[in-house]
Amino acid sequence: MDRKEENSEVIALTQALMRCASVTPKDAGALDVLQKNLEETGFACHRLIFSDEGTPDVENLYARFGTEGPNFCFAGHTDVVPIGDADAWSVDPFNGTIRDGMIYGRGAADMKAAVAAFAIASRRFIKEGNGAFNGSISLLITGDEEGPAINGTRKVLDWMAEKGEKIDHCVVGEPTNPNELGDMVKIGRRGSFTGYLTAIGTEGHVAYPHLADNPVPHLAAMVSALDNLVLDEGTEHFQPSNLEFTTIDVGNPATNVIPKSAHATFNIRFNTHHSLDSLEITVRERLEQVAKERGCHYELECRKNSAPFLTPEGEFSALIVRAIKSRLGRTPELSTTGGTSDARFIKDFCPVAEFGLISQTMHKIDERANVTDVEALTDIYADILKSYFSKDGC
Amino acid sequence: MDRKEENSEVIALTQALMRCASVTPKDAGALDVLQKNLEETGFACHRLIFSDEGTPDVENLYARFGTEGPNFCFAGHTDVVPIGDADAWSVDPFNGTIRDGMIYGRGAADMKAAVAAFAIASRRFIKEGNGAFNGSISLLITGDEEGPAINGTRKVLDWMAEKGEKIDHCVVGEPTNPNELGDMVKIGRRGSFTGYLTAIGTEGHVAYPHLADNPVPHLAAMVSALDNLVLDEGTEHFQPSNLEFTTIDVGNPATNVIPKSAHATFNIRFNTHHSLDSLEITVRERLEQVAKERGCHYELECRKNSAPFLTPEGEFSALIVRAIKSRLGRTPELSTTGGTSDARFIKDFCPVAEFGLISQTMHKIDERANVTDVEALTDIYADILKSYFSKDGC
Repeated sequence: MDRKEENSEVIALTQALMRCASVTPKDAGALDVLQKNLEETGFACHRLIFSDEGTPDVENLYARFGTEGPNFCFAGHTDVVPIGDADAWSVDPFNGTIRDGMIYGRGAADMKAAVAAFAIASRRFIKEGNGAFNGSISLLITGDEEGPAINGTRKVLDWMAEKGEKIDHCVVGEPTNPNELGDMVKIGRRGSFTGYLTAIGTEGHVAYPHLADNPVPHLAAMVSALDNLVLDEGTEHFQPSNLEFTTIDVGNPATNVIPKSAHATFNIRFNTHHSLDSLEITVRERLEQVAKERGCHYELECRKNSAPFLTPEGEFSALIVRAIKSRLGRTPELSTTGGTSDARFIKDFCPVAEFGLISQTMHKIDERANVTDVEALTDIYADILKSYFSKDGC
Repeated sequence: MDRKEENSEVIALTQALMRCASVTPKDAGALDVLQKNLEETGFACHRLIFSDEGTPDVENLYARFGTEGPNFCFAGHTDVVPIGDADAWSVDPFNGTIRDGMIYGRGAADMKAAVAAFAIASRRFIKEGNGAFNGSISLLITGDEEGPAINGTRKVLDWMAEKGEKIDHCVVGEPTNPNELGDMVKIGRRGSFTGYLTAIGTEGHVAYPHLADNPVPHLAAMVSALDNLVLDEGTEHFQPSNLEFTTIDVGNPATNVIPKSAHATFNIRFNTHHSLDSLEITVRERLEQVAKERGCHYELECRKNSAPFLTPEGEFSALIVRAIKSRLGRTPELSTTGGTSDARFIKDFCPVAEFGLISQTMHKIDERANVTDVEALTDIYADILKSYFSKDGC
């Protein structure tokens, strides 16, 4: 089989996926394109539509080739973020235009090319061995990664657990590389905790401050106190935990009125020094101190988005690193930096690592990927399968 | 003449004014009602309509009885604030309903009854002397006191200056009494200065704080610094100057985004220790310190609303105090507390003091005034005229 021809398959599938305007939560035919390709290879496909009150219905796909274990899983998503200012794009964002060796469009980096690479790498590995290997390959693809992530990977995993569909190791194809393909494999992610803080005062007129209790300076003191918290110094694998205020709002247009309350929202990205619950205690203790010092009142509502996790370095990460190094001559950093991904759900079921394309243009105007990177990524995914099944898993 | 009958005139005129729904900037016929009454007494009336780009046209009235000096001026307004929740009122807010000795409705306290008292007190004083006294009485009534105050008293005063219409002393009929009629005469007002503060950072993702500069903690530090400023300890006649933050806003709904900038608005009510310009310097110096300490950027826009003023205690204030004491047996406090009024404009033309009804219900649901207070206020205004002209002014 001609390698070049094989690899152009992955670009064609990437383009077919990119031509579906699957802006989250819309599917726009993307999963049909993928399912058709996987069924041609011999995958058994399950389309799963999940819904929840107040959220849109979302289409998901679980596909499996083989029935035995170990079950190696590729996970990702076909939904994309909105295109932003359409006029600012130099190409049609839903056409998969190739120009100067780059494939342009929404989802090129995050992460339709990686999903296509999953499918084509699997096809090639299966074809090369005529379908004979000890185990199964599965794809867990959601349409709700860029959205609220309520009707996506989490519910597919629950459905799989119910059906006895066990996965043993998982590679997520999110764009993990800051600059060059092979820069970085993510072996964990920080947790995410959001706090909604309200300082409560007493409304009044600015000319009669003694009859009021202005919540704005109370909130400012709380913002400073939380901003100055040193949560930890980091761990071997994680950056120091960090808290950022994302907004602070009163919404009072009257310059002669002292408002009744003032709100601020903060988000903490945190490492394995903390749990979601211990973090809430830390934050509440600090706020309690400020409230006591100032004699003021506050309310805090916590949204515990995700706990931090780490897939410790070992056979599984070594296998991925070897595949990357052998194709690219580059040893990737094993990192836990960056935002959250659906790996936060998968980590409760099996060891998970993330490796995909370059992240630079994701979510931006003129999102794009190197065609040669997409082809190399397909080779690397195929090598990972080969290595994984040559040794009966990790 | 029967005193009781005289005083019911003032209630009738108050009711006629209150039946005009003159919610600022609408006149709704209120000045016609007043003008008719004044013309019956013999006042020469000038209706003045002023406009300005971006503001509504406003009707004003300048009325004068007599041509000689000194010219004693009563100043006030016939516009009222909106009624708020109409269903919360126990009466029609534009009917002047009398119940249990109180006249109810929007403008009862602030300040249609005082405007009626100006007219009826003047009529009585003029009738008693058959129009013979050394000087003039004038009324300066605007429809833009509760609004932006751009097309009201300030422009009437400019028009008067152009026409050579000099006033020598002025009583403003704003509701000055916290609890009982006769509690308080205002002989000055604090100044008002509004600052629009923006902390400027660099936008980013909460997972990559090193690539961003969060403006929220910068703004919180600036809020704390300005809130902790001790501007002064007050003066003999003034409370300490005071700064209050009225709002603080970012408006960022995304809990994973560090915003680019954060805004806060503050208002300073200040005494004669400061000028509008010196206050701006004080504020900017403090912000500059914080910005230097934190290495952050900010912008400050200042709106210099009004300078503080004081009509020093003397013959004029003594005359008002005597009139109040003689009618009510109560010695009013000479105060500079509370919000701003159109006296801030008049103070540039002549000594000005303020005395009116009880302020408790102004701007509120079921605004109201004691009928006996309205009648007593009319008596006091008439006594002030009598005393003023018996001694050829102050």
